Amino acid sequence: MPRYALLIDYHGGPFSGWQRQSGQPSVQEAVETALRKLEAEAPGIAAAGRTDAGVHATGQVAHCDLAKDWDPFRLSEALNFHLKPAPVAILKAARVADDFHARFSANERRYLFRLIARRAPLTHDAGLAWRVLNRLDAEAMRAGAAHLVGHHDFTTFRSTLCQSKSPVKTLDEITITEHAIPQGTEYRFQLRARSFLHNQVRSIVGTLERVGAGSWAPEDVRAALEARDRTACGPVSPPDGLYLTGVGYPENPFV
Amino acid sequence: MPRYALLIDYHGGPFSGWQRQSGQPSVQEAVETALRKLEAEAPGIAAAGRTDAGVHATGQVAHCDLAKDWDPFRLSEALNFHLKPAPVAILKAARVADDFHARFSANERRYLFRLIARRAPLTHDAGLAWRVLNRLDAEAMRAGAAHLVGHHDFTTFRSTLCQSKSPVKTLDEITITEHAIPQGTEYRFQLRARSFLHNQVRSIVGTLERVGAGSWAPEDVRAALEARDRTACGPVSPPDGLYLTGVGYPENPFV
Repeated sequence: MPRYALLIDYHGGPFSGWQRQSGQPSVQEAVETALRKLEAEAPGIAAAGRTDAGVHATGQVAHCDLAKDWDPFRLSEALNFHLKPAPVAILKAARVADDFHARFSANERRYLFRLIARRAPLTHDAGLAWRVLNRLDAEAMRAGAAHLVGHHDFTTFRSTLCQSKSPVKTLDEITITEHAIPQGTEYRFQLRARSFLHNQVRSIVGTLERVGAGSWAPEDVRAALEARDRTACGPVSPPDGLYLTGVGYPENPFV
Repeated sequence: MPRYALLIDYHGGPFSGWQRQSGQPSVQEAVETALRKLEAEAPGIAAAGRTDAGVHATGQVAHCDLAKDWDPFRLSEALNFHLKPAPVAILKAARVADDFHARFSANERRYLFRLIARRAPLTHDAGLAWRVLNRLDAEAMRAGAAHLVGHHDFTTFRSTLCQSKSPVKTLDEITITEHAIPQGTEYRFQLRARSFLHNQVRSIVGTLERVGAGSWAPEDVRAALEARDRTACGPVSPPDGLYLTGVGYPENPFV
């Protein structure tokens, strides 16, 4: 069976997450249902990142096996037709080698977290960013984040439900940028690593927000990391601000 | 009665427009209802721009008269409390002179139009941008737009329902920028004038999209303008991509 990689964009709001769960709407189920409109016997699919409930994607990658030899452009168009009106879109489809695996072949994941500081409630960005009331100190957050970049035991920053064998990961990058918006400020956190632990990005952003608010000193982040203790973590941020923006492979299937 | 200016942000999706209309939800009604939770006898309010159904704002301005001497910050907080869960937020309130009028004192309006070219349907930006399928020629659109900047008779570019006494307006600026997005391009049109005619921005953007798609030559925009004939206009763009981003006054009430 020919194998295809799918580049997927979705609004996480209406879903219980990427992964299929009986009785709850999932992005995986939405895409598999669309695939089975094309080929009734299409097998299940695997994705690079199993995003949680409410988490968004602009660059999720999944792979699927189909019986027919589909033109990739027609495949993406047909899937988008059947996905309507769910807020899930196939940005691109590509034919890949039989040993390509969306999850196991990936060697990089990129996430964006949008945090908006303003007094007024969100309107256009409701459900698309985490809102806090007061302005944050971006320099302090950057100083706190610097302690997390590199090869570390991230036990403090992973969910107790995390199924990863090891809590040791290499975090390649955390970039924090500030953007003026009407009567407020948006902070954009960009994180990049080979792979992430369950809730790692939300645990890191929730902790850095405490640093930005002045409740934690930047050095407290290092102490929390070195504690290797989940209870040393700051509050986990809500899912609304999190986006899986891209997945890297030794060879980009979508060029 | 002390007079206040309100800086207002809203998602136009659920509303029939700014202006109160019997039996239909309007932004004006939402704000007036919140005001009357504070003071039962609060009179009606006036806004700088009467946005159409589905049109958004990040910088609408209205003024209201209240009996009590409200602290502006507490006024905005109280209004936001009563506006929930409508997607309308008071970004700032300010005490203004008794002769300040949100509409008649304004000497500048700024609009943004978001147009996204990509094959895949919109997810996060559904209802927040106009989507077209194919990439546009930004240089051609800029060349077309250049014919519209300045002092002209804009009969071609105004709704037949427009109530403005004269079709002659000065368009101070049209800036068109291109932004790469995953598997697509976003075009942002920024327009600035003392005032606009009814449907003027949507008529201009819809016409320039035809230029960007290659159906019209840039010079056809000049011919359409010079025709002073509504039927010479290109298609009017949908409202979803339009945002009233700011209103200028001789003295900014919100600094």
